[in-house]
Amino acid sequence: MKSLKIGKQTIRFLSAPSLVAAASVVGPKEGRGPLSQHYDIILDDPINHTESYEMAEHTMLLQACKHCLTKANMQEEQIDLILGGDLLNQILSTTLTARELQRPFIGLYGACSTMAESLLMGSICVDGGYAENALCAVSSHYCTAERQFRYPLEYGNQRTPAAQWTVTGAGAFLISHTQHSPVCIPCGTIGKVMDYQIKDANNMGAAMAPAAADTLAAHFQDTGRTPKDYDHIFSGDLGKVGSDLLKNLMKQKGYALIEDNYTDCGLMVFDPKDDVHAGASGCGCSAVVLSAYILDKIRIGAWKRVLFMATGALMSTTSSQQGESIPGIAHAIVLEHREDGMK
Amino acid sequence: MKSLKIGKQTIRFLSAPSLVAAASVVGPKEGRGPLSQHYDIILDDPINHTESYEMAEHTMLLQACKHCLTKANMQEEQIDLILGGDLLNQILSTTLTARELQRPFIGLYGACSTMAESLLMGSICVDGGYAENALCAVSSHYCTAERQFRYPLEYGNQRTPAAQWTVTGAGAFLISHTQHSPVCIPCGTIGKVMDYQIKDANNMGAAMAPAAADTLAAHFQDTGRTPKDYDHIFSGDLGKVGSDLLKNLMKQKGYALIEDNYTDCGLMVFDPKDDVHAGASGCGCSAVVLSAYILDKIRIGAWKRVLFMATGALMSTTSSQQGESIPGIAHAIVLEHREDGMK
Repeated sequence: MKSLKIGKQTIRFLSAPSLVAAASVVGPKEGRGPLSQHYDIILDDPINHTESYEMAEHTMLLQACKHCLTKANMQEEQIDLILGGDLLNQILSTTLTARELQRPFIGLYGACSTMAESLLMGSICVDGGYAENALCAVSSHYCTAERQFRYPLEYGNQRTPAAQWTVTGAGAFLISHTQHSPVCIPCGTIGKVMDYQIKDANNMGAAMAPAAADTLAAHFQDTGRTPKDYDHIFSGDLGKVGSDLLKNLMKQKGYALIEDNYTDCGLMVFDPKDDVHAGASGCGCSAVVLSAYILDKIRIGAWKRVLFMATGALMSTTSSQQGESIPGIAHAIVLEHREDGMK
Repeated sequence: MKSLKIGKQTIRFLSAPSLVAAASVVGPKEGRGPLSQHYDIILDDPINHTESYEMAEHTMLLQACKHCLTKANMQEEQIDLILGGDLLNQILSTTLTARELQRPFIGLYGACSTMAESLLMGSICVDGGYAENALCAVSSHYCTAERQFRYPLEYGNQRTPAAQWTVTGAGAFLISHTQHSPVCIPCGTIGKVMDYQIKDANNMGAAMAPAAADTLAAHFQDTGRTPKDYDHIFSGDLGKVGSDLLKNLMKQKGYALIEDNYTDCGLMVFDPKDDVHAGASGCGCSAVVLSAYILDKIRIGAWKRVLFMATGALMSTTSSQQGESIPGIAHAIVLEHREDGMK
């Protein structure tokens, strides 16, 4: 058996599976943001005409999955595997979505890194021949995340300057062996849990930055590449505080992440005048930016090679209350433009 | 690329990866149970000399991982991937364990089905060549689960007859391409989320039984096998209520699950006089029975082929409070004795 390991944390996908379709659904606030024109569906109501924000998040994720299949011209029965997760306890939104879709389901949890985690595991399953079509799906919702991780919205607490605003958004991505596409996934890097003893649950950027730096450095060491080998590098939701920290940490490791080709998805969803403080966060943040913006650029060949790294703060209210620090993790995948994948 | 799909939900592992080592750690109550002599480590204190039950669960899982590596005579650095999860919100125990071990980490959530889910994904990664050594690890703790999902223990609520007792236990399993073993994993079946509208969070057996029946029937249909093709079939933690329901549901589907070769792990951990009502549950339930009992039987060749199916109730306190029913899921793997794996 051939080993597909590259270095210590990176794995090669020999067939470079195609990312054939993607769909994004966002809430009204996100829908007014800078990427407004790029989203597939913009909800007219944050509760999505359901009776709770949790059901709103679930139905939004289901809409993303169904829209992705429509774009791929594929039936639900053709999906071999759904891989996904969200921020809710027991990944409620994704579980209920998998209940609706009635396809084999692997539940994942990597906090906001789940977007890259699901694409990594989906690529493994399709590249290895264990699935022909894998649907990778994640979501987050501002109102469910706030009341679960912080305070009920009704409490009206003041947000700290380092706080980020959880994106109300869902993304679904179809990785396929049967369909071809100009976007393929040739390799990825699996992250380790890093903890620099940050204990402020309102400063997730700082908690996640060390993990992002660790994964990024591991990727460059494993592949022998540098930031210049990528048309663009995206981190998931480090926000202003975290992405500045990442640049510093990478500089210490000998890599220059320059404005020219590095951006954080958390700085792209909301307008500065939206008063979201340090930026956007949530599984949905990197998911909708990837689906609505990044993939299009790769599809048309404007970018030939992109590194997409989603970051997660692995906190729980219990661990915070017990005085534990916030561990972080980051997973990365490489996305490439493939000429022969054009239809 | 060769498709490794068998039927609709089952996948083949061409190399039949070796399950080279396993370790079990249990709490004092479990340590007094019928499998007492088989566990690797029995804690003398349910809080494991830490300051909270959550830290007890985490340290117990870490002990299981380290003991598993010791049994395999392997260093932490040789592990390419940790795949695991637990029942705590944001899979806290596993995250903190991955933080200690400093190896690439994929977080999973499938409630009590996580044991089989991690072995499935671990087998995919090793069989496909994406990892040489994958450590699959899960845990549960009675005291953390009760206070998170039901009531604080101090409240002293009365348990209903259908209630199950969450096992305080952790299991770690090493799937390897570099070491050989008499226990191998030739295939597995990935489950779908099933929901028969059970809303009683104290009757998880009933909530999980339909998913167990669905996965079991899918496995038999995909492989063309019947229960008689297995020396033994184990479900994870259906308990008395759920396993009786599973037998009935399978009978309706045309398969006879007879006492002769079908048992539920939830009926094996505690003594009937322990007053645990419908039996044991939790990720740790099937994990410690698999590690401490089932694998030994396969290792010595007493059983040549076993079907191990872990079941999960995908409830959250939020969904229960909102009146949602409890979705269930079950994943299965086949474990076989391999003569040429004997050292």
